[in-house]
Amino acid sequence: MDQVICTVDVVLLTLKEQRLNVALLKRDREPYKGVAALPGGFIHAEEDGDARDAALRVLREKTGIDAPYLEQLATFSGPARDPRGWSVSIAYTALVHDEVIEKAAHPDVKMACVDRKLSLPFDHKAIVDTAVARLRSKSQYSSLPCYLLGASFTLPQLQRVYEALLAEPINKVSFRRKMTEMAMLESVDGEMEAGGAHRPAQLYRLKPEYRDQLRLLERGL
Amino acid sequence: MDQVICTVDVVLLTLKEQRLNVALLKRDREPYKGVAALPGGFIHAEEDGDARDAALRVLREKTGIDAPYLEQLATFSGPARDPRGWSVSIAYTALVHDEVIEKAAHPDVKMACVDRKLSLPFDHKAIVDTAVARLRSKSQYSSLPCYLLGASFTLPQLQRVYEALLAEPINKVSFRRKMTEMAMLESVDGEMEAGGAHRPAQLYRLKPEYRDQLRLLERGL
Repeated sequence: MDQVICTVDVVLLTLKEQRLNVALLKRDREPYKGVAALPGGFIHAEEDGDARDAALRVLREKTGIDAPYLEQLATFSGPARDPRGWSVSIAYTALVHDEVIEKAAHPDVKMACVDRKLSLPFDHKAIVDTAVARLRSKSQYSSLPCYLLGASFTLPQLQRVYEALLAEPINKVSFRRKMTEMAMLESVDGEMEAGGAHRPAQLYRLKPEYRDQLRLLERGL
Repeated sequence: MDQVICTVDVVLLTLKEQRLNVALLKRDREPYKGVAALPGGFIHAEEDGDARDAALRVLREKTGIDAPYLEQLATFSGPARDPRGWSVSIAYTALVHDEVIEKAAHPDVKMACVDRKLSLPFDHKAIVDTAVARLRSKSQYSSLPCYLLGASFTLPQLQRVYEALLAEPINKVSFRRKMTEMAMLESVDGEMEAGGAHRPAQLYRLKPEYRDQLRLLERGL
């Protein structure tokens, strides 16, 4: 059996001012020491229950962010992507509310807008592009965008997140019908957003069964 | 860095009498020698350009089937799935027309209906279940089912494949509208199927640009 290097990388995404941002971390060792890259690391066979565990551990150790919504993206591999040798990276997408990143306030983590030209080591640019394309595509027919919001939110807030990801305005009536059809939300009793000039809006949250598991829509938005 | 075993496994699917079948191969070595399992093997760092290359090589060497439609499914990992140690399997789904398997006629390959209770070593049952669920779900909004047919086919044949995967009848008019919308097919000049009692039907094939790359539909069938 040939030696293959086995790593995980995490594309941690959040929405800042309606734009998708990815978390980059200055590398503390060679190769590419000092260069901003995706948080990643080797699988620790002694410690990790599976690759997902490894991704959660790496994220916790390197960014201070614990247990975000996480899903496997794809596996990237080959002899050229890492100067250390033939390597496999099992890549994960993590979604969090912007406040989670602000709260963690990790000094080495920088958020970069994915619409800007990113220059990244390894094949991390391709990994980020794949994650963003997948998120945008899945936003058409799933609850995925909800994980970019906090624990509770109003329907107008949720609609703005969907619109940011789909990069187009959505009709309010049809949006609300689709959310009803997905049946993934429950109202938060007695809580209302202080709504400036508008009357207070109802707050919603994901039903417990959909907090870690995606809700899919048979026909898209 | 801890030692992690790096393998690929292929879920080779075909449609036999309107039922999905998976290719199983009797294992020629330990662990599970003599037991039917998915075709798989170690990544050969000296030889394979990436994990996809490894999957194509393994399939060619072990089943005689060359260059089917292939896509990455997911990566399975952990300390318990393989008795040899902490392992990663990058799993691929391959789709072929039934005739391709008949033509290869590999003596060690057996086709098993996925609707039957399959008892498989490692976590191969979970891998097959994931592949089948993904294929069925993607059939709702993509050209994926086309790869289960030969190079050319009639629209009624294609509709029967979609119906088999979605496990429900599809309205003929709406099916044809969706196929037109996907714009992935071209007619094959001058060729018609000998159609028994019916008048001959036009034959179609995938446009060259969609023979290796999936065509997606914004709104499902």
